[in-house]
Amino acid sequence: MKIINKDDHLQHDPQFFVVRGRLKRSNEQPARGEILLAAAREAGHSIVAPREHGLAPIEAIHTRRYLDFLSTVHPRWQTLEDAGEEVVANIHPFPGEPCTYPRHLVGQVGFHLGDMACPIGMHTWKAAYGSAQCAIEAAQLLLEGERAVYALCRPPGHHAYAERANGFCYLNNAAIAAQYLRSRHSRVAILDIDVHHGNGTQGLFYPRSDVLTISLHADPHYMTPFFTGHADERGSGEGFGFNVNYPLPKGLPTEGYLEVLLDACRRIVDYAPGALVVSLGLDTYEHDPYQGVAVSTAGFADIGAAIARLGLPTALIQEGGYLSDALGDNLARVLEGFERGSADARP
Amino acid sequence: MKIINKDDHLQHDPQFFVVRGRLKRSNEQPARGEILLAAAREAGHSIVAPREHGLAPIEAIHTRRYLDFLSTVHPRWQTLEDAGEEVVANIHPFPGEPCTYPRHLVGQVGFHLGDMACPIGMHTWKAAYGSAQCAIEAAQLLLEGERAVYALCRPPGHHAYAERANGFCYLNNAAIAAQYLRSRHSRVAILDIDVHHGNGTQGLFYPRSDVLTISLHADPHYMTPFFTGHADERGSGEGFGFNVNYPLPKGLPTEGYLEVLLDACRRIVDYAPGALVVSLGLDTYEHDPYQGVAVSTAGFADIGAAIARLGLPTALIQEGGYLSDALGDNLARVLEGFERGSADARP
Repeated sequence: MKIINKDDHLQHDPQFFVVRGRLKRSNEQPARGEILLAAAREAGHSIVAPREHGLAPIEAIHTRRYLDFLSTVHPRWQTLEDAGEEVVANIHPFPGEPCTYPRHLVGQVGFHLGDMACPIGMHTWKAAYGSAQCAIEAAQLLLEGERAVYALCRPPGHHAYAERANGFCYLNNAAIAAQYLRSRHSRVAILDIDVHHGNGTQGLFYPRSDVLTISLHADPHYMTPFFTGHADERGSGEGFGFNVNYPLPKGLPTEGYLEVLLDACRRIVDYAPGALVVSLGLDTYEHDPYQGVAVSTAGFADIGAAIARLGLPTALIQEGGYLSDALGDNLARVLEGFERGSADARP
Repeated sequence: MKIINKDDHLQHDPQFFVVRGRLKRSNEQPARGEILLAAAREAGHSIVAPREHGLAPIEAIHTRRYLDFLSTVHPRWQTLEDAGEEVVANIHPFPGEPCTYPRHLVGQVGFHLGDMACPIGMHTWKAAYGSAQCAIEAAQLLLEGERAVYALCRPPGHHAYAERANGFCYLNNAAIAAQYLRSRHSRVAILDIDVHHGNGTQGLFYPRSDVLTISLHADPHYMTPFFTGHADERGSGEGFGFNVNYPLPKGLPTEGYLEVLLDACRRIVDYAPGALVVSLGLDTYEHDPYQGVAVSTAGFADIGAAIARLGLPTALIQEGGYLSDALGDNLARVLEGFERGSADARP
């Protein structure tokens, strides 16, 4: 399978990260990308750099003012008196309150950065832009006839909204790819198997029926993002019924996980999309630091196979999955399983 | 004038405070209370402890689940693995998204703590409760016939919403006092002269016409809370026209400030309330660390006098005002001016 990679992410190394009242280094580290790339290469896949697709496909998902903000904020921030090296929010708009878009940079930072897990350093925009280019390249290759492509997207994207970063995510790579595929296909499905609810993806397509969004994730009653990801969030207006959440019990083992995944796959079959975008988190792993559900390394091959059996042009977009004993191996198994499932799917 | 004080605040000494990407000690320090108390005592005012008014007057403003949260969160937090000493949020609900109230403590913290300036330490609940008792005592003394009372409230309150702390504030003392005064008076006015927009107070009374809320503050286009406090926020439904914001230009000197204050006072006269609650921030001071507007120490006496000339039963509730060369002196001047204005107001 073609692996799309761009090394621009390597200098994006977020430091400011607040967890339970302590300042820590972020879990979203450059080594993640290096490990994933090495594993894909070792498994014999071909590594390809993305072509330059520009801002237009990104602007189809994110607002102009947000992109202006992301691409210019770091040098502007440095002009503030006693500013830290990274751009970090300290105030946010509240649900249900009036909200005027701020003119002051600190206000804009609070508007656009939703939590304590998306600091912007000197190289963040370059990394996020490059990550999005990888996702767009994957979508473009599907349009050119590839059966499946894997985009090594770092930073990840599924928590990012139209104009709000959060949870390590700045640009919603999967949403950008899905929207790009809409140029050819009247219906596209996104299957999000990261251990965290894909709140940004849900938010972006919530009122729409032309992109089915399905997310399997640890029950937000016990895991971030806490407020969203419940089963009763089904979409709004025309989009009602086209957002599906599967909150999963803590520690769910592989077998139980695969059962839910098959149910999700049946929904995708019913929807009959022209293409599939997978938000591929590997943090469902049983030894991932997040400890949400407990998929085994062997289980990742079954996940890959189940998705491949849908027989759809598929863009696998890297989301979460953190440093553990088997991060690279888990990716290799997904890709191996996908190739096995693809063979099954051939008529 | 009677000064209501309770020393319970002295152990509330918040540490975790993020400003422009740096972790700093909070500006909201116990010394503030000590300085204000000493200044009031030195000026010859009598210091009185509040009677115990219980939770009922607080529950008239804040939700039960928020009060349960505030009063129990610190020991619960300590049971989390590797939790910091203070309770700090790292994620928040987003405007416009679905939001289920979280079962997990970290989610509840994100729901109830709106920014990086309201950590909860071991003594925070006791301090906030005591601060609210001072405000209620002030209101009660007005009902018992006092012309004016000053409540030395620390922590401050005007940024706190029905179930959300932020900006050093946990319980909205001024709102609690105003609601308490509603038992006697059909209309009560709140005049907020802290340098920051009283967003919590606005939010609490936004749909109501029985409590007029007026706030003079540094233009949120250049000062926190950034998103609210604009002149076009006038109230909703029945409350439309009963919320008035005066965003002020940066560095506005005393004379200009007093002109705006007189305009606000005219609105209060037109409203004809039975009592007045003043959210008394002293951070409009020209040398306050926040550097919003530039009221001189002498100017604070004129502010006190202008408010007193309204001739209303008045509860002065301490809000912001930070360590500077004249914090205590500025309070003394407000109280002195108030007594001068009261003499003018006598028929």
